[in-house]
Amino acid sequence: MGIDPGLRATGFGVIDAQGATLTYVASGVVRTADAALPDRLRSIFEGLTEVIDTYQPEVAAVEIVFVNVNPQSTLLLGQARGAAIAALVAQGLPVAEYTALQVKQAVVGHGHALKEQVQEMVKRLLKLPAAPPTDPADALACAIRHAHEGQQVTARPLAGLKMRRGRLVSP
Amino acid sequence: MGIDPGLRATGFGVIDAQGATLTYVASGVVRTADAALPDRLRSIFEGLTEVIDTYQPEVAAVEIVFVNVNPQSTLLLGQARGAAIAALVAQGLPVAEYTALQVKQAVVGHGHALKEQVQEMVKRLLKLPAAPPTDPADALACAIRHAHEGQQVTARPLAGLKMRRGRLVSP
Repeated sequence: MGIDPGLRATGFGVIDAQGATLTYVASGVVRTADAALPDRLRSIFEGLTEVIDTYQPEVAAVEIVFVNVNPQSTLLLGQARGAAIAALVAQGLPVAEYTALQVKQAVVGHGHALKEQVQEMVKRLLKLPAAPPTDPADALACAIRHAHEGQQVTARPLAGLKMRRGRLVSP
Repeated sequence: MGIDPGLRATGFGVIDAQGATLTYVASGVVRTADAALPDRLRSIFEGLTEVIDTYQPEVAAVEIVFVNVNPQSTLLLGQARGAAIAALVAQGLPVAEYTALQVKQAVVGHGHALKEQVQEMVKRLLKLPAAPPTDPADALACAIRHAHEGQQVTARPLAGLKMRRGRLVSP
């Protein structure tokens, strides 16, 4: 499960990774209305808890957010990300973190990709009929980045296949 | 229950408020070790969840934190506060927020009080044998601030007593 945290909109994307085979499961956005901050954090926490209950992911990957030019916005974004990660750890999920640079490198091949390129590559990699909106696309891209990581760590050679540098190779 | 959020140390303080009578219940600090950020947020979330389980507070009051000179510190503090508030709302607690100014005005009488003055007044108001350390003192002060608020809203006149501006007065 990938997460792109934000106070107004927190993107999420769930994929199934079997070795190098990635399959789309679900994606969407947890939106918060204008309300007192604790209520907005509650919406993020409860929304992500519901997604976890529904799709039962095994691990979560969260995009590392950066400081904003506006310190007050940075503080708000931090609180949104804190509530999102709390929802993940409350359900016992291990949480990995990736910078936007790492995520873009994984899905587009270089770290300076535009939003549209990320959306397009997520569409191709997950064989979707259309490119997802930016927040779910970023969340799915983060999940894809982690799947690459997991593949290197946990993939096991099947009969007749060999591993090279953590990846399955033909014999 | 009052909360003074921080990434390294989150102070908490639990008081019992019966009208104008405030009684100390518990206070302490949830500390996080140097570790990956999700693990530290997990410590804050689980630590406060344990405090709530133990003392069953009815409402929480959280100090509003301010932006730091260092944007990265602001982002970290925001995430700590987000995880703390998530722990409160996850247990169904209503959450009130007060600025340090409001808290100091409530316990010391003016908003520019020093840390030591807050500690001393918390000691006096709760009839403690000694002044608590700063983090629990700030959390207790935040709880006291909210008790004043609650008193104005929910206090009811006993037989022979009258209410004036939400406060009990002698007949």
